[in-house]
Amino acid sequence: MVMILLLNVLVGVASDDHARFLLLYGVFQDALVNISQLFPELRGEMNGEKTYAADIESIRQAHARIDPYIHETPVLTSQTLDLLSGKSLFFKSECFQKGGAFKFRGACNAVFSLDDDCVGRGVLTHSSGNHAAALALAAKLRGIPAYIVIPNNAPKCKVENVVRHGGQVIWTEPSMEARELTAKRIQEETGAVLVHPYNDPFIISGQGTISLELLDQVPNIDTIIAPISGGGLISGVALAAKAINPCIQIIAAEPAGADDVAQSKASGQIITLSKVNTIADGLRASLGSLTWPVVRDLVDDVITVEDQEIVEAMGMCYEILKVAVEPSGAIGLAAVLSKKFQASPAFGVSQNIGIVLSGGNVDLGILWQSLHQSCSRT
Amino acid sequence: MVMILLLNVLVGVASDDHARFLLLYGVFQDALVNISQLFPELRGEMNGEKTYAADIESIRQAHARIDPYIHETPVLTSQTLDLLSGKSLFFKSECFQKGGAFKFRGACNAVFSLDDDCVGRGVLTHSSGNHAAALALAAKLRGIPAYIVIPNNAPKCKVENVVRHGGQVIWTEPSMEARELTAKRIQEETGAVLVHPYNDPFIISGQGTISLELLDQVPNIDTIIAPISGGGLISGVALAAKAINPCIQIIAAEPAGADDVAQSKASGQIITLSKVNTIADGLRASLGSLTWPVVRDLVDDVITVEDQEIVEAMGMCYEILKVAVEPSGAIGLAAVLSKKFQASPAFGVSQNIGIVLSGGNVDLGILWQSLHQSCSRT
Repeated sequence: MVMILLLNVLVGVASDDHARFLLLYGVFQDALVNISQLFPELRGEMNGEKTYAADIESIRQAHARIDPYIHETPVLTSQTLDLLSGKSLFFKSECFQKGGAFKFRGACNAVFSLDDDCVGRGVLTHSSGNHAAALALAAKLRGIPAYIVIPNNAPKCKVENVVRHGGQVIWTEPSMEARELTAKRIQEETGAVLVHPYNDPFIISGQGTISLELLDQVPNIDTIIAPISGGGLISGVALAAKAINPCIQIIAAEPAGADDVAQSKASGQIITLSKVNTIADGLRASLGSLTWPVVRDLVDDVITVEDQEIVEAMGMCYEILKVAVEPSGAIGLAAVLSKKFQASPAFGVSQNIGIVLSGGNVDLGILWQSLHQSCSRT
Repeated sequence: MVMILLLNVLVGVASDDHARFLLLYGVFQDALVNISQLFPELRGEMNGEKTYAADIESIRQAHARIDPYIHETPVLTSQTLDLLSGKSLFFKSECFQKGGAFKFRGACNAVFSLDDDCVGRGVLTHSSGNHAAALALAAKLRGIPAYIVIPNNAPKCKVENVVRHGGQVIWTEPSMEARELTAKRIQEETGAVLVHPYNDPFIISGQGTISLELLDQVPNIDTIIAPISGGGLISGVALAAKAINPCIQIIAAEPAGADDVAQSKASGQIITLSKVNTIADGLRASLGSLTWPVVRDLVDDVITVEDQEIVEAMGMCYEILKVAVEPSGAIGLAAVLSKKFQASPAFGVSQNIGIVLSGGNVDLGILWQSLHQSCSRT
């Protein structure tokens, strides 16, 4: 399979709903929970049946929409890692996605869903991570500006990715308040549409295209393990996979130092942490109002892993799989090799496990120092 | 495309010729040039027509033979690197091959060509590199012993690969004399068949399967760049590619500190260097009697690059392509980005360039230190 840009010409589908949601979300960002209450379909309940912010139909539409722009990423396998885990592992390698992470799928779907009335004003996000670079790249492809509010402690390589893709960087202090205030100011000045990194139906649908591809590439997958942070990735993955085969188990992998999802699942409501402590800079967000219902209902288990397990998994990805993955990207492998997974009810019924290597944007120096410290400790 | 072990059951083709060649080569290793003189077809001349140690037929047979065991490696692309080079680049990523390098193709072809009479005694090689691990792995798959004579200065990760694949390591001093003497002793004790890393028709045919796959994956390739050392890889690649499309240009990439091939091509005869100096530990060998005729006749140009260019290309592979490649693996990218390539007659007629990322077995510490030193110098 050649992983080149697919050249099928598909007509972009404009969406009034999306513009409405994004505009509302942009204007009343601080009051998101209230906004979603206006839309029963986004709250997870309608006519007595559970519905979510995305479904197999919206995910298939997303796939048709983004197909000309994304890479169909390869699935890697390794007998060494199969032996280590006792399972057949299939690594869906989103580190090879454009922009270096799965985030391009959702960003591309969001940007190409904007209708002609609002698209010219551009898009906006406040993010230190892969979503920012992905949004910049998607905006460049559509020929519109992307305003990226970035905290001044963001990893160098991620900022470089934003700049490389033509994003307009606006620096801010790292606190969430400062980020939101700056974003609000830029939005008022430009009229750009805010695209949230995960709490957005079009983002969730875009990320769900991973399951469509993976289950096409390896039809006998019985379990999918994906990292969880705000829940956009796993929501899309779960909605698509369970629609195709309801028996597929969905496992979230989460850093022990930012285990709000494990706590949320245990308590039955969204828990946010006042402080997180993990090397996985991509996994420090909290669940959103649109992702929580999916995570609550469709994620079968949450496996928490220590930072050292993440670092060891990064080393294995590098040395055995020969791929560069960032800490968030390696956490799925860390989870499948963990004792917690062996103790999970999911373990016994898992044989062919899809693992989402979610991204590869890591400063080599950080990888080396992390591994070095990890070796010194052991 | 799913890069999993293909399960097609194919009947292994035993070959008397191969056994004869390997046995003779094993017994009279020091006198290889004389041996090849016994076989006009291996000398590159027969009936007035040029023939070589392999051809499209033997390469197709090799592909059928090794197909159940090898990975069909993915082809990666990057718009960033396309912009940098001004060409469309297609990276045939043999770092994802079993054993972490293309060498498994040739080793697998050699091992599965052995006939029943001699196969039980196992195989033998003296190598510090990827051929050793590849031979160990191929031997394990066929259920026979692999004796690997390894110089005691070999990179740690390469030795670990040999051990991981079940090879029996025999340590020796690094000099070629010590390696050959030790190999001879082991051969006398065990009766194992010596498999040369490159000067072997079955090795050359195995490596040639890369071109079959690449031209199937990207049919409009007009140029292929591959690293050169002993010439086994590029001989197979050139023989297959030119048989399929005689217009395809074949470019060898060679370290400036081990430029025996550039010198050989310039002088019209095999030149061996008394001393080599390059970071690319996989590219320090000299041409063999079977590879030289192919390199002489079918390699259109040799691009030499400095070690610093190789290190920078390794960094780009890591940060942009998200793949781990060893110095030898990155040299093709270094060549395509070099001023020497821009000055080559091949440059103007190259547009769609296949680059063989030959292997990914690199100690992370070595990569980091190399990049760090490179950054300090610039």
